[in-house]
Amino acid sequence: MKKLINIKRRDFLLSSLAVASTALINSSASAKATNKIKGAETESRIQDLERVKQTLVNPPFLPTHDQIAKGAPKVVQMTMTIEEKEIEVKPDVFVQAMTFNGTNPGPMIVVHQHDYVELTLKNPSSNTLTHNIDFHGSTGALGGGGLTHVAPGQQTILRFKADRPGVFVYHCAPGGIMIPYHVVAGMYGALLVLPRDGLKDNYGQPVKYDKAYYIGEQGWYIPKDVQTGKYKRYSSSVEAMGDTLKVMEGLTPTHITFNGKVDALTGNNAMQAKVGETVLFLHSQANEDTRIHLIGGHGDLVWPGGSFSNTPTVDRETWSVLGGEAGAAMYTFKQPGIYAYVNHNLIEAIMKGAAAHVSVEGDWNNSLMEQVQKPSPIT
Amino acid sequence: MKKLINIKRRDFLLSSLAVASTALINSSASAKATNKIKGAETESRIQDLERVKQTLVNPPFLPTHDQIAKGAPKVVQMTMTIEEKEIEVKPDVFVQAMTFNGTNPGPMIVVHQHDYVELTLKNPSSNTLTHNIDFHGSTGALGGGGLTHVAPGQQTILRFKADRPGVFVYHCAPGGIMIPYHVVAGMYGALLVLPRDGLKDNYGQPVKYDKAYYIGEQGWYIPKDVQTGKYKRYSSSVEAMGDTLKVMEGLTPTHITFNGKVDALTGNNAMQAKVGETVLFLHSQANEDTRIHLIGGHGDLVWPGGSFSNTPTVDRETWSVLGGEAGAAMYTFKQPGIYAYVNHNLIEAIMKGAAAHVSVEGDWNNSLMEQVQKPSPIT
Amino acid sequence: MKKLINIKRRDFLLSSLAVASTALINSSASAKATNKIKGAETESRIQDLERVKQTLVNPPFLPTHDQIAKGAPKVVQMTMTIEEKEIEVKPDVFVQAMTFNGTNPGPMIVVHQHDYVELTLKNPSSNTLTHNIDFHGSTGALGGGGLTHVAPGQQTILRFKADRPGVFVYHCAPGGIMIPYHVVAGMYGALLVLPRDGLKDNYGQPVKYDKAYYIGEQGWYIPKDVQTGKYKRYSSSVEAMGDTLKVMEGLTPTHITFNGKVDALTGNNAMQAKVGETVLFLHSQANEDTRIHLIGGHGDLVWPGGSFSNTPTVDRETWSVLGGEAGAAMYTFKQPGIYAYVNHNLIEAIMKGAAAHVSVEGDWNNSLMEQVQKPSPIT
Repeated sequence: MKKLINIKRRDFLLSSLAVASTALINSSASAKATNKIKGAETESRIQDLERVKQTLVNPPFLPTHDQIAKGAPKVVQMTMTIEEKEIEVKPDVFVQAMTFNGTNPGPMIVVHQHDYVELTLKNPSSNTLTHNIDFHGSTGALGGGGLTHVAPGQQTILRFKADRPGVFVYHCAPGGIMIPYHVVAGMYGALLVLPRDGLKDNYGQPVKYDKAYYIGEQGWYIPKDVQTGKYKRYSSSVEAMGDTLKVMEGLTPTHITFNGKVDALTGNNAMQAKVGETVLFLHSQANEDTRIHLIGGHGDLVWPGGSFSNTPTVDRETWSVLGGEAGAAMYTFKQPGIYAYVNHNLIEAIMKGAAAHVSVEGDWNNSLMEQVQKPSPIT
Repeated sequence: MKKLINIKRRDFLLSSLAVASTALINSSASAKATNKIKGAETESRIQDLERVKQTLVNPPFLPTHDQIAKGAPKVVQMTMTIEEKEIEVKPDVFVQAMTFNGTNPGPMIVVHQHDYVELTLKNPSSNTLTHNIDFHGSTGALGGGGLTHVAPGQQTILRFKADRPGVFVYHCAPGGIMIPYHVVAGMYGALLVLPRDGLKDNYGQPVKYDKAYYIGEQGWYIPKDVQTGKYKRYSSSVEAMGDTLKVMEGLTPTHITFNGKVDALTGNNAMQAKVGETVLFLHSQANEDTRIHLIGGHGDLVWPGGSFSNTPTVDRETWSVLGGEAGAAMYTFKQPGIYAYVNHNLIEAIMKGAAAHVSVEGDWNNSLMEQVQKPSPIT
Repeated sequence: MKKLINIKRRDFLLSSLAVASTALINSSASAKATNKIKGAETESRIQDLERVKQTLVNPPFLPTHDQIAKGAPKVVQMTMTIEEKEIEVKPDVFVQAMTFNGTNPGPMIVVHQHDYVELTLKNPSSNTLTHNIDFHGSTGALGGGGLTHVAPGQQTILRFKADRPGVFVYHCAPGGIMIPYHVVAGMYGALLVLPRDGLKDNYGQPVKYDKAYYIGEQGWYIPKDVQTGKYKRYSSSVEAMGDTLKVMEGLTPTHITFNGKVDALTGNNAMQAKVGETVLFLHSQANEDTRIHLIGGHGDLVWPGGSFSNTPTVDRETWSVLGGEAGAAMYTFKQPGIYAYVNHNLIEAIMKGAAAHVSVEGDWNNSLMEQVQKPSPIT
């Protein structure tokens, strides 16, 4: 056992160094870490924990889960398959994307604090690049990035303790220039770690949600053909890379999507709610800062940093989600109708695509708002 | 009555859909809402409330108001007239602006929590475009945007309950590409909803302000003539639109103003205070994020999200106001002199125009700061 | 004495006006302040305080200091020498920088709340420009900027009371366009004002750090030669100014560094820690907003606005530091290895340079994270 762990340890160090040294060009960081391993005695205890499988689903939906944990911490097992694929982010605008499980964002994983996440990460041989996964909700080894480099045809299993409640980004970070390139290609998702006894409001009182939606915002940097003025289409990530890096240097996304595609969450795909229902909106951004506003609604509760041990702020018109952060906002709908859920840089919302809809059924409440005089000739 | 309400309801749904469906190109959102109306019984109660008229004034000033509410909630009535007009944002730099009441930002409306805002919105026939108003401080119907589309020559009356204390943006959001275009043309303002018992500090103790100022930050995207290198001047919003949208795509404002014009709040128009006075600075941005700093001063109290039910943070050197957010910061001046109040991206402050002055009278306090040795030859 | 103070007072007003009037082009702010001086009686008390000299050191290090203040408030004296110098921000990429004490960022000054900072600021005759210093942690006279204009060959002494606990930016702000130009040339640093009884966690319990590091993020706007596509090198600040201002107008830095140089804090210069050690990361930005993430770690405690009277937020994956703000985050390391400390706009981190390393020694803890299966062929 000791030997095996030492081998793993060495692997980690090598991976860690490999990543770190490419994370910055010309880096020569050295780990200087010893070979001791803690937690071997805990290891057996982990083996004793109940194991449950989580079936991941496509965003904006979350896997089936309890808001309040039942029983003792568990090892929650799931599998994600990396898929390099072309995405049409807008009619006739294409990007050579990279995804966890085929979607942008990747699936939301849901566990409770003190549970263990045990992920099997597969990089099928149909892909062309090496990938890995860095969990912002984990501790050590570059968020697991140092332990999970999988070449096409490989898989790996990572287990970590979800020791902090909140919602956290995960993303691919294979090293050097590939870190921003893979992230900007869409390769990220989020992990929800619920407190074992559920969420609390600003008074410390329990709150529940009737529905939860996961919105992943993505900035895309798509090169334009100077001659035609049209966005270019590429046959592979490698072919797209040189041009795309040049656009990235300008730090101005050409397109911004909520869930992989302009209008992915509008019309028939709008999020749904009813008057009186409480919805938890989980929103992530792996690279650019954003500012979320629900037109016609509010953030009743917005947790600083998306971390549930913080007292939520209330009555928010707009809330920040930083690049590399996932946020959590809760709202109880009071009026029916269509709500637009937007990045409130309205250029980004309308011209770039960063908007969604929530369609809400129910009874209109005149005591909250009333059209006293409909549009009529000026008197 | 029921019939009337149903008609209004249908109007809302139609408006709501119209806006929503243009909010995103190709959207086909459907409301699926029922026809029931709540609040009819409350309606009579609203009719029983005292009605008061509020005379709006030009920023940076606020209408006359009480910090602590007197008596029961009221219906506060005011009128705003939309004015499309050319603004000279800087000597010889012009923009075809759109405004609420002729100013950028539009006037601050001031009420107390649980009051009703009853706005008559007029779009005179001298204007050329359809406008509306979306109140971030209201609930439902796209913040009232779905109920207030007024063509030139029309007026409408919207009433809503101000149920959350804080300072909130309102803006025009007529649908589709016109949403960012009207906002970027200056068409926004703010609503201050004071707690009925006034503001509280971080210990929950009452605090009062001696003065309040409203600063509206605005990013402008003014096209340049490639030949001459000069900013272009247009004869109408429609003429300016194509070029302006291209500049907007770059997400980089060419000019940023505090109250409609570079230097609108400096020199003789500087904000005024005295040593010992407490000033409430209300600051809004409808589109871009900003970071506010008072050079030589601080944010004694800065409310997260500009919402007064949150515990204010203290001792802030710089505070965030997001695009689509209004913020509130309170400071008691301790030293006389000129203070610069800036967006602390100093390029934006000095090169783009995002700066103002506060001129403070009073006695200098050497125990806070002293020039021990004035500039002299190095010893 | 009165006369002397009055003279100083007049000097201040003149300086203040000079700065303020150039702070905005065409400003004609007037002070309207009276000539009375408070604090003369306090003056003698300041003279009675113990005086200690602080030896400033180069970032990322902090001067020797106590976390809990010993005895009564002191006058802490230090000297900073302004140095205009060329910096190689990346191999073969040069900038005509301006610095406090020769480094970007300038040195961290450390005092306790209620101490006085007494700075001797020297601008040697080897420099070419007038400089000054604006302390965000001070009160009045444009943060001292109005009292400290030193031409080459001059020195000045400023004393101010550090009356708010937190970490605060200081920067050069000599007036008008020189404000952003000097800041963008690197001329800024930070002041740490510790609470007299040390830092407190989110429960109000005392916390100590084993190490503290100061990371100064800097956006650079380096002009490119259109012909060669290479970054241009200039022989002086004055020569560089015209081209640089044009790049600044675009608001997009060409390079972003942590401590003055890409890779300044990686490899052999990585920050160091041990498993179990608590590190205080102080991070500042004088101009652009940033978002900090420690890859593989967290912000255990992150103080809103970098101000220690605020309750720290916990469990942060990423935290905001605004342009013109310094932030404070504390983390206790739990795993050994290399951590990347980045601005989590990953384009900014990897392509522009905004990244550092922390090298952590100690024992690996399998109960927090384990590589259950190393990368292997897919089964």
